[in-house]
Amino acid sequence: MTEGIQEGDQSVSLDLLKQKMANFAKERDWDQFHSPRNLLLALVGEVGELSEIFQWKGEVPKGLPDWKEEEKVHLGEELSDVLLYLVRLSDICGIDLGKAALRKVELNAIKYPASNTNNGIAESG
Amino acid sequence: MTEGIQEGDQSVSLDLLKQKMANFAKERDWDQFHSPRNLLLALVGEVGELSEIFQWKGEVPKGLPDWKEEEKVHLGEELSDVLLYLVRLSDICGIDLGKAALRKVELNAIKYPASNTNNGIAESG
Amino acid sequence: MTEGIQEGDQSVSLDLLKQKMANFAKERDWDQFHSPRNLLLALVGEVGELSEIFQWKGEVPKGLPDWKEEEKVHLGEELSDVLLYLVRLSDICGIDLGKAALRKVELNAIKYPASNTNNGIAESG
Amino acid sequence: MTEGIQEGDQSVSLDLLKQKMANFAKERDWDQFHSPRNLLLALVGEVGELSEIFQWKGEVPKGLPDWKEEEKVHLGEELSDVLLYLVRLSDICGIDLGKAALRKVELNAIKYPASNTNNGIAESG
Repeated sequence: MTEGIQEGDQSVSLDLLKQKMANFAKERDWDQFHSPRNLLLALVGEVGELSEIFQWKGEVPKGLPDWKEEEKVHLGEELSDVLLYLVRLSDICGIDLGKAALRKVELNAIKYPASNTNNGIAESG
Repeated sequence: MTEGIQEGDQSVSLDLLKQKMANFAKERDWDQFHSPRNLLLALVGEVGELSEIFQWKGEVPKGLPDWKEEEKVHLGEELSDVLLYLVRLSDICGIDLGKAALRKVELNAIKYPASNTNNGIAESG
Repeated sequence: MTEGIQEGDQSVSLDLLKQKMANFAKERDWDQFHSPRNLLLALVGEVGELSEIFQWKGEVPKGLPDWKEEEKVHLGEELSDVLLYLVRLSDICGIDLGKAALRKVELNAIKYPASNTNNGIAESG
Repeated sequence: MTEGIQEGDQSVSLDLLKQKMANFAKERDWDQFHSPRNLLLALVGEVGELSEIFQWKGEVPKGLPDWKEEEKVHLGEELSDVLLYLVRLSDICGIDLGKAALRKVELNAIKYPASNTNNGIAESG
């Protein structure tokens, strides 16, 4: 079990979410459904729901100043759904997502040196 | 800096990634590009790259036993790209992603009680 | 109306759908909402709904032999939603989608010569 | 071949594209790769590439007045890739996409009556 990881901590870890998703699936006998491509398509489905929130709004400013509280809560739920399936997909594929993400940040820093402002944004990713 | 969060810890936190992405954008003067819908479309682009890895493979078993190491590394990179844009999008929208994710797990537990095995999987999400 | 294009024809044309979508938006005063990126996000939303249909099914055989009629009808609706937004997005961007598609087929034929069987599938697209 | 459908016609039909895609796959022995979920993930991959074109641009006006010709050509290619996989996916699933699309337009007209301007846009799709 995820010793030393406590929910009361300020910052939620990827391992905590991984463990919660694994327990959740086990308790419901859902492991049988959680194949890599099933989870990937579920992730795509959630990205679709996330997009629907933004689809008719035109550009929206940072911090979403004009959004109602209930809209923000809904947005948080859709962002979470994407995250939870991403964490679960990584786990089922045997990928350490946190470790991979830290490594990717370092790779990005090499690919886009800090002094090279603005250049490369068009091909980032 | 995010006091008390150290990279050496076993488990990578969402706040650490958020802070790294914020610093990364600031150092490159990329905040100007990081509007909510720009980031959302960048996220969709990365989900596309993630899908490309799986697109011609048919169903693949858990743990990806037959994948080459370089394929797994590539997969880790694409999973990370999705995560990093998701973390950044949440930050720019003013959403606490970790907190939202923990709440969503709890909501899911209410929506799909553990005794109610298998039922509801078709409408999950 | 698009002279010479009749719905009674066996084969539905992209121009007919384009015209129908344009009329539909005009009659509802929806042109104001149909900006390129709004339509793109709406398209992503529909791709999400399409993915949801397939997400928990594991691999499914061609022709969907075991699907209920109502599932196939639903699938036809989601495929259509993706198509209709794609047609509308192309129109709003000033792209002749049919012409572009014929050209792309020709480009693909050059990129993947018919004798070169199987090779290149992994990088197709 | 699809009798009566000629490429020289002004308007490209979905059946023509379907036939071209079927021939293309057959000539390359690619039918073995064209399972429903493989094609769906390929479609998602192309939607990702389409999104990448728009990701750092902020809102763009209709007609893309400031885009270079080569950018528009690229856009036409990505829109086409989405369309071609959509047509192929529909064919492999045994769905008549053109017929389904015409039916969906009619359903939408019932769901969103023309007099009911603006209302319902948030839940359209």
